[in-house]
Amino acid sequence: MFIQGKTSIPQFLIQRASLTPDRAALFFEGSCWSFEELRQMSLLYAARLTRCGISRGQLVAIQMHNCAEMVFIIHGLMMIGTQTLFLNGRLTDCEREWQLQDAEADFLITDRETESKAAILTLSSIRETESQPFSVRREMNLSETATIMYTSGTTGRAKAVKQTYGNHVFSAFGSVLNLGLRDNDKWLCAMPLFHISGLSILIRSVIYGSPVVLHRHFDPKLANQAILTEGVTIMSIVSTMLSRMLDELGEEDYPKTFHGMLLGGGPAPMPLLERTTAKGIRVFQTYGMTETSSQIATLAPEDALRKLGSSGKPLYPCQISIWKNDREANRNEPGEIRVKGPNVTPGYLHDRGKEAFREGWFYTGDLGYLDEDGYLYMLDRRSDLIISGGENVYPAEVESVLSAHPDVKEAGVTGISDDIWGFVPAAALVLKEGAVFKQEEILHFCKERLAKYKIPKRYIILKELPRNASNKLVRKELSKYFM
Amino acid sequence: MFIQGKTSIPQFLIQRASLTPDRAALFFEGSCWSFEELRQMSLLYAARLTRCGISRGQLVAIQMHNCAEMVFIIHGLMMIGTQTLFLNGRLTDCEREWQLQDAEADFLITDRETESKAAILTLSSIRETESQPFSVRREMNLSETATIMYTSGTTGRAKAVKQTYGNHVFSAFGSVLNLGLRDNDKWLCAMPLFHISGLSILIRSVIYGSPVVLHRHFDPKLANQAILTEGVTIMSIVSTMLSRMLDELGEEDYPKTFHGMLLGGGPAPMPLLERTTAKGIRVFQTYGMTETSSQIATLAPEDALRKLGSSGKPLYPCQISIWKNDREANRNEPGEIRVKGPNVTPGYLHDRGKEAFREGWFYTGDLGYLDEDGYLYMLDRRSDLIISGGENVYPAEVESVLSAHPDVKEAGVTGISDDIWGFVPAAALVLKEGAVFKQEEILHFCKERLAKYKIPKRYIILKELPRNASNKLVRKELSKYFM
Repeated sequence: MFIQGKTSIPQFLIQRASLTPDRAALFFEGSCWSFEELRQMSLLYAARLTRCGISRGQLVAIQMHNCAEMVFIIHGLMMIGTQTLFLNGRLTDCEREWQLQDAEADFLITDRETESKAAILTLSSIRETESQPFSVRREMNLSETATIMYTSGTTGRAKAVKQTYGNHVFSAFGSVLNLGLRDNDKWLCAMPLFHISGLSILIRSVIYGSPVVLHRHFDPKLANQAILTEGVTIMSIVSTMLSRMLDELGEEDYPKTFHGMLLGGGPAPMPLLERTTAKGIRVFQTYGMTETSSQIATLAPEDALRKLGSSGKPLYPCQISIWKNDREANRNEPGEIRVKGPNVTPGYLHDRGKEAFREGWFYTGDLGYLDEDGYLYMLDRRSDLIISGGENVYPAEVESVLSAHPDVKEAGVTGISDDIWGFVPAAALVLKEGAVFKQEEILHFCKERLAKYKIPKRYIILKELPRNASNKLVRKELSKYFM
Repeated sequence: MFIQGKTSIPQFLIQRASLTPDRAALFFEGSCWSFEELRQMSLLYAARLTRCGISRGQLVAIQMHNCAEMVFIIHGLMMIGTQTLFLNGRLTDCEREWQLQDAEADFLITDRETESKAAILTLSSIRETESQPFSVRREMNLSETATIMYTSGTTGRAKAVKQTYGNHVFSAFGSVLNLGLRDNDKWLCAMPLFHISGLSILIRSVIYGSPVVLHRHFDPKLANQAILTEGVTIMSIVSTMLSRMLDELGEEDYPKTFHGMLLGGGPAPMPLLERTTAKGIRVFQTYGMTETSSQIATLAPEDALRKLGSSGKPLYPCQISIWKNDREANRNEPGEIRVKGPNVTPGYLHDRGKEAFREGWFYTGDLGYLDEDGYLYMLDRRSDLIISGGENVYPAEVESVLSAHPDVKEAGVTGISDDIWGFVPAAALVLKEGAVFKQEEILHFCKERLAKYKIPKRYIILKELPRNASNKLVRKELSKYFM
């Protein structure tokens, strides 16, 4: 029955396997698992993880790259009933340790040989562990936290987003109402599973009963091949990936059964849209973030050119409004984008960032407006966020690392445009008196403390950083130094 | 955000009209309304009803037959935020008054000229009322009661089922995961909107953004025409309707774009399934009831012959189990069917029938079993329920009316099979000493007190009724007298 606070739904994978056991669930590097086989493999990994000491209610971190075993472990942990913390596979040891400690993780499951203060379970050790019976979760409460993801690596502003089972269910519901559901649907996941863009594909797959084709990492040739010859009908993507796929595709065309590209990470540039239109490829441009458990707005392909640059309208269970000076903005008036919906996180771990949640709305910090027809246009990412090849880079986090270098007095970081990655970080440094800039040394310093995609690709030395009247760093003004 | 107890979603129709204003929403007798037009019409009716005195939180009854205005009123009442009580259009005045009083209805909206103790608003008077501005509901809490439907007409066992917004949302979600969602979907509603089978089509339409073709009542020729020439792709139906449509269809075939028939009201007989199979018509056999806000289990067409007589497997958010002697039954072992899911009612009005809700499960009273593959087979309807042409007839209610007749000492009612209606009620009477059976008089007596479909079609006179050791009437044994 539906009584709020008590509403539960059957365990995602167990229910799916009991309804459609023989349907294909997962394709990975030449192997295929049905939903029943996926259930069995996930149960096996859950039983091994139980023997390793993992039990219901614990907080278990995963740092892995896409592979079938990662899928088994994700579902296995849900069967046990842990809260699963997804670590970006590209974090440095230093960043990872910070997140593990901050989240108070009980275990770290990883595919690499490493050392950690947390209890480590490597993939190879898990494989060799015997099974131990455990109490399989049959139902999940919708308000239970299923997954956790940090929005940045370290620093005081790092916030870990909690995603509940209810969030995931309503995200899948909103998406299906928007994209439809056909018998032949087959989703290509070339996004990392540690991102909400990748993880949500996996969860939609078991809820919808349609298969996922999982790639270890994004490769334009392999991605095209999956669409051309392996029956993939839909794919999640960011602009840079799409552009590389079109380059690789050349004169070929996707089959008519290909439904389209779900494009996140900011609006697609006009020339790219023109190329996809010419090719007859449908592009669904979306707006979303970790806090909204995947998309919260999507632009229909028929509006892609008419509403160029827009992220479309909210998903059915969601609302978007623009907030300015403590009131709702008028149409076409820019302000802060705020969102509401059952797919929006109930909050951050340790109750951080509470000020972003007011009266049921989440204030994204992103700037944008709604046009006269209610279409969302994003003007600027929150907190000067730099999106580099689909990864979020927070300037403040990078600045905090740079400032810790003995030669650096102050640092300002901004995004500069890049042909491959869309944007990359670039740094303006103010050196301490007498210090000399040694780029190699700075790079080495960063490499130990920052995931590779966060390390500034260009540097300039300034006498002072541009600041506004209240002495706040104006990062936008840094851009001119890199033109 | 998803916090249980506080989760809200946008108002169904207002959200749909803001997302896809120009899509077709409703077809009725040659007219068509887009979602934006439907929103405007519903707002107009809501504003008129406001002027009539209807306001948020009230309990408003509707007794109408299918028509476009009924749709405007249903959505209009949701915009105001009433609890809407759906009265069966075939109830006698006497039955209707009982329900209005029992539910403590504030208003009765009706399309007929009648008298009532409740405040009556006739359709013609509403049409002539001026608009009055009101505070339009923008969001609905998922735990709010949206609709109410009685499971029987009167008597002590009459229970009014509350359906929340959450119930309707999860019902639509479970259905879309089962039936899919295509761009050309168009649902024919020839079921009464006062039944959950009809109402749920209307609600799915605004949630999915796909149109409904509404018929005033079921007519096999018009229904076939809608499929053959008006682009209808799916239809909700019961066996007797399907059989009459096939008779009328003759040698013609439905177009390939026709998706299938959602068949409720008990399993389809074998010859009917063979006819549909021969015609290439997909039939989705379902199990559901007012308490589950439409379907809760469905049999996939590919299993229709292999699992003959089964109602299939639960919808994705739902669970079904068989309960016997205070434990879960084994596979193939019959017992009481119990169901669980976010589409299941939180309970009956006035807290009646609480004993049917235990530990999150609703005990349906229906008998059935799950086979070794988890497919549900229903053996017997709860409480000797008779389903006659899709309408529920409760023997106890009919017996109570018969027993009130001055000539009748005792009455027993059972269902006997009927070529057109599947089953019809039949009565065994024990007369008072010296009384003589006058069928015309009994029929007249019933007609004043019972909806037509509840009136027994055949009668026999017995010296005593068959009773078991504890003196309980054994209705099944009555059947033999009518063979």
